[in-house]
Amino acid sequence: MAADGPVSTTERRARVILSRVVEPGDVDACRLVEEFSAAALVTRLSGGDIGGGAKVQGWAQRLAATDVDALLHTASRVGARYVCPGDHEWPPGLADLHRCESQSRDRQASVPFGLWVRGDADLAGCVRSAVSMVGARSATEYGEHVAAELAYGCVESGLAVVSGAAYGIDASAHRGALAAGGTTCAVTACGIDRAYPAAHTDLLDRIAASGVVVTEAAPGCVPTRSRFLVRNRLIAALTAGTVVVEAALRSGSLNTARWAQDLGRGVMGVPGPVTSKLSGGVHQLLRQPETLLVTDAAEIVEHVSPVGSGLAPSKSGPVSARDGIGARARLVLDAVPKQRPAAVESIARAAGLATEEASRWIADLHARGLVTGSASGWRLP
Amino acid sequence: MAADGPVSTTERRARVILSRVVEPGDVDACRLVEEFSAAALVTRLSGGDIGGGAKVQGWAQRLAATDVDALLHTASRVGARYVCPGDHEWPPGLADLHRCESQSRDRQASVPFGLWVRGDADLAGCVRSAVSMVGARSATEYGEHVAAELAYGCVESGLAVVSGAAYGIDASAHRGALAAGGTTCAVTACGIDRAYPAAHTDLLDRIAASGVVVTEAAPGCVPTRSRFLVRNRLIAALTAGTVVVEAALRSGSLNTARWAQDLGRGVMGVPGPVTSKLSGGVHQLLRQPETLLVTDAAEIVEHVSPVGSGLAPSKSGPVSARDGIGARARLVLDAVPKQRPAAVESIARAAGLATEEASRWIADLHARGLVTGSASGWRLP
Repeated sequence: MAADGPVSTTERRARVILSRVVEPGDVDACRLVEEFSAAALVTRLSGGDIGGGAKVQGWAQRLAATDVDALLHTASRVGARYVCPGDHEWPPGLADLHRCESQSRDRQASVPFGLWVRGDADLAGCVRSAVSMVGARSATEYGEHVAAELAYGCVESGLAVVSGAAYGIDASAHRGALAAGGTTCAVTACGIDRAYPAAHTDLLDRIAASGVVVTEAAPGCVPTRSRFLVRNRLIAALTAGTVVVEAALRSGSLNTARWAQDLGRGVMGVPGPVTSKLSGGVHQLLRQPETLLVTDAAEIVEHVSPVGSGLAPSKSGPVSARDGIGARARLVLDAVPKQRPAAVESIARAAGLATEEASRWIADLHARGLVTGSASGWRLP
Repeated sequence: MAADGPVSTTERRARVILSRVVEPGDVDACRLVEEFSAAALVTRLSGGDIGGGAKVQGWAQRLAATDVDALLHTASRVGARYVCPGDHEWPPGLADLHRCESQSRDRQASVPFGLWVRGDADLAGCVRSAVSMVGARSATEYGEHVAAELAYGCVESGLAVVSGAAYGIDASAHRGALAAGGTTCAVTACGIDRAYPAAHTDLLDRIAASGVVVTEAAPGCVPTRSRFLVRNRLIAALTAGTVVVEAALRSGSLNTARWAQDLGRGVMGVPGPVTSKLSGGVHQLLRQPETLLVTDAAEIVEHVSPVGSGLAPSKSGPVSARDGIGARARLVLDAVPKQRPAAVESIARAAGLATEEASRWIADLHARGLVTGSASGWRLP
């Protein structure tokens, strides 16, 4: 259904209503909408005797207090729109959330039936080539520095950076992307009319000015722990891979990484000192074979690029003239003294080679500038 | 042959001679000794017209200058002995070096035909349950601290620690093991009568007092770059796994790690800040799927222990009362205000649940001490 073009105006208004009535990411609600339509669900909930369990009762109760025009008005006041599956800017990657439906109860998720979006960029275009970067709120200076550097580098390589607008790593990732003049996308757990944390009001405005701020929750919603957890699935699903920069053992960022893994996205971790609690969670993640250790933007780009493209330059350290010589020549070179020049015979003995052979290698090493000769013999330059 | 008990006195003396005549780890020499015996090779080399290539000519030249009794005398002066395959203290693990014979020319290796050993411990007993710990000479304070801590912890868990007695990580690993009152083994690249680096004379004496110092090179030999490289194969072969603590991109420690991998031993790396060049080599190693990231001694012990034994405690962070509650109760808990108490109806609305259900969960949360109640409503404690 979602792929068959935009939904009707009635259906869109019903989805706006449901975004307030049901908890963001509620698996049952998402399924009902997909199977029957939001309009049908809203009609049923407002029909009086609805039956159903406690959850459905709760929906009906909340529906009675919901004013769809007020929601749309609040959103339009902050320049936000409601995007549904089928809209041109609906990110196709979100459809992969279907595959998470089979997970255990605590890890279930469905495709959202709509998203509140604020910002000048097109959401789908924004995340077409993107990576998530998440981590601890109480990050260290090291973590914030690295997150900003990595985000900057990713943007320079043409990737957008998606994060959660929280303190610490999230903010550093957004700021690094903005500093590079790139696109960045913040996925929040509260209403699109709210800035959370409040101190990031300016940051969220800057993100919206060139990228997008996205949320599943209706205007007016406050962020709750559960909402952060279901929000994480969107961060993972919107991008080709998730990078965790710093995370303690129970960090919510590890939850995002697990979503990325469930979704078949790349899972990456940036190591830190083993003495830092804030790297403890990342290190446990990196002990799992599915997680790739990354140390710079090039390695991130390589991991989220199609096989064979975006390859990171191999890290091999400086190459010296010594590298070009063979094992026998190296034996001779090792036997050449540093300071006091030595005769060929003495060098040959130390190298364990016959004098004639050592003499040939010394000539070769001399031609390469690796040994220097004088009347009193040979030594290192 | 090696497994059939000790070699004859003649053969042992021939091996002592060869340890001076051929380069440590020379693949051709090791093979000839194994196929024909050291005695036969020495006889042939001293027989005058020996033919053969430049290398064999070099052996013959060096043989002429070798005094076996002087070598044995020098060794006995420092309390060292010469151990051969077939001796009770010959470590069985070294036989695995056979499998490296098929590697590319630069990575070939053979089982040594003998080892110079100094120290009160039995070499085989010393490394029966052991791990190698290697890393940068120019280590950081972080690296040295971590190496010492890990070695200490490994010893406490009953592992011996093998390293190369170099500055930096090697020395810290030996010192950590000694501090824990454990056994440690130094494998050097020079003669057993030499301390390299000289500043580690005392350290090597302390190692020999409770463990062993081992080398393939004959007394009098100086350490050369090539000798360090072949020495590394012994460090890897003597232990169940190799841990690299700090290593720049071209560090010799990575060479030891490659040997460990070729030998089917565990390869482990300790991460550090991505901003540290001295962790750069370890991080590249950790990007290979064969390498396991380790952050403490327990994880090292687990990796080198037989499957199912020596398991490291799972790292999961602190457990809170919150962990025990279900998803629906969590929705309610998330909706309970921190400061100003709220009525059940308001909490239920915020949670998106019917009042009756929210009321039941609040009673449950109250019983768990997670919410506190008063005449004006419910709030967090």
